[in-house]
Amino acid sequence: MLYIVGLGLGDEKDITLKGLEAVRRCDKVYMEAYTSLLSFGLSSDGLSTLEELYGKEIVVADREMVEEKADRFLAEAREFDVAFLVVGDPFGATTHTDLVVRAKKIGIDVQVVHNASVMNAVGACGLQLYRYGETISIPFFTETWRPYSFYEKIKKNGNLGLHTLCLLDIRVKEPSFESLCRGKKQYEPPRFMTINTAIEQLLEVEEMCGESVYGEDTICVGMARLGSPDQKIVAGPMKQLLTFDFGAPLQCLVIAGETHPLEQEMLDFYRLKE
Amino acid sequence: MLYIVGLGLGDEKDITLKGLEAVRRCDKVYMEAYTSLLSFGLSSDGLSTLEELYGKEIVVADREMVEEKADRFLAEAREFDVAFLVVGDPFGATTHTDLVVRAKKIGIDVQVVHNASVMNAVGACGLQLYRYGETISIPFFTETWRPYSFYEKIKKNGNLGLHTLCLLDIRVKEPSFESLCRGKKQYEPPRFMTINTAIEQLLEVEEMCGESVYGEDTICVGMARLGSPDQKIVAGPMKQLLTFDFGAPLQCLVIAGETHPLEQEMLDFYRLKE
Repeated sequence: MLYIVGLGLGDEKDITLKGLEAVRRCDKVYMEAYTSLLSFGLSSDGLSTLEELYGKEIVVADREMVEEKADRFLAEAREFDVAFLVVGDPFGATTHTDLVVRAKKIGIDVQVVHNASVMNAVGACGLQLYRYGETISIPFFTETWRPYSFYEKIKKNGNLGLHTLCLLDIRVKEPSFESLCRGKKQYEPPRFMTINTAIEQLLEVEEMCGESVYGEDTICVGMARLGSPDQKIVAGPMKQLLTFDFGAPLQCLVIAGETHPLEQEMLDFYRLKE
Repeated sequence: MLYIVGLGLGDEKDITLKGLEAVRRCDKVYMEAYTSLLSFGLSSDGLSTLEELYGKEIVVADREMVEEKADRFLAEAREFDVAFLVVGDPFGATTHTDLVVRAKKIGIDVQVVHNASVMNAVGACGLQLYRYGETISIPFFTETWRPYSFYEKIKKNGNLGLHTLCLLDIRVKEPSFESLCRGKKQYEPPRFMTINTAIEQLLEVEEMCGESVYGEDTICVGMARLGSPDQKIVAGPMKQLLTFDFGAPLQCLVIAGETHPLEQEMLDFYRLKE
């Protein structure tokens, strides 16, 4: 049996009782370390906190391992109980859907333990979940790669009066360009996009496209470390959030569409006092 | 302190460790019983399972109590620690946002413990969460009340190639029409819309509007008891799901937009074998 267990968003105590029981039942426990990383997953100290709570040794599975060596660990799941731990909810990222498909194809039973993900926890800012349009991802711009397909999506959401959740780039264990050239893999240090960078890039794209889809005065909500005791939620115009220091990752951003009175009231709580 | 604790979707073991610790710390524990109900919340037996696990007496709070008597229990939260338990995630429903606003207005600290909700667990069907448009609600049609504003929204999502999550009506402790006429509140038995009824109503609206937004052959995914051990996920054209017996509530429906190969593969697992 393959258990895919969502760990939620904050810390080791966001696992559900059901998830904890599954992990404790398993012979082998893997933890994904590529789509996102919890603060407690970043250091070996953090990992030992988890291992202590779960009573199990945890093998950190990076992207390479899951994508290239999935067969090996699916083979293990055929023989005994294997848990695969995922930050947030198991279906927050495409990679885990792929894992489920591969397992089902070779007849391995899969059990999913759900948990909170950014896709629903974002409701904390007060903008109602059912009034969001398509979710977009904002990738780190490089000198030569500045994709902006998100612009059209924000426009379409905006035309319908809907909010847009912007997921910000996370780069963990990416091979460096130089190392690829040398044919030997070396990794860049992990990078997490800040709300500041996201807004900077958004404004750059708006300036280039010039369709006034949004601008400096567009109301947004920046959210950092959602679900943690020190989460930070700030609502305000882009130009204000552009320079606000949200602190440590992970961060995400919502571009508000049309807002109802109750949504307005919640946003007011999160506005910076002038 | 007011703790608003998400219970997740399946059963009593879907609470997080963080949520459980909060509940055990509280002097008074309320449980919402109006936006949705867990199978284990329906009977007094189910409630005692929860009470045993939490080591606390639970007061079931119906809609009336929360909307009309919120002041009383917010006053309690000023004096001591009060937990308010919510099926799914605290921000899945507008009512809980309202509660947060009211608490913050009178200076009561609020702590939210997130959990899975239908808004993210729906990812289990394989249609990627970031490719959903606006979520719609389908209300029970009556002889005189057949609102269909959802039609326009499905159309707009469809035009963008996006999937549409349809939340199906839940009627718990609704005063009966007759009792309102007599000026004395009596309640209708709880009703939960099935996928069958939802599709019947959807097709009726399509026939009336006639814009071919969807039809009998439109691929949908029906999901019952999401997150429970006996959850049922079936993908197929509307005409097939129209008569399929999904069993007990709660149920929801997704109308698929454009699908990617990986999404297709997942849907294939959930198709009925001919």
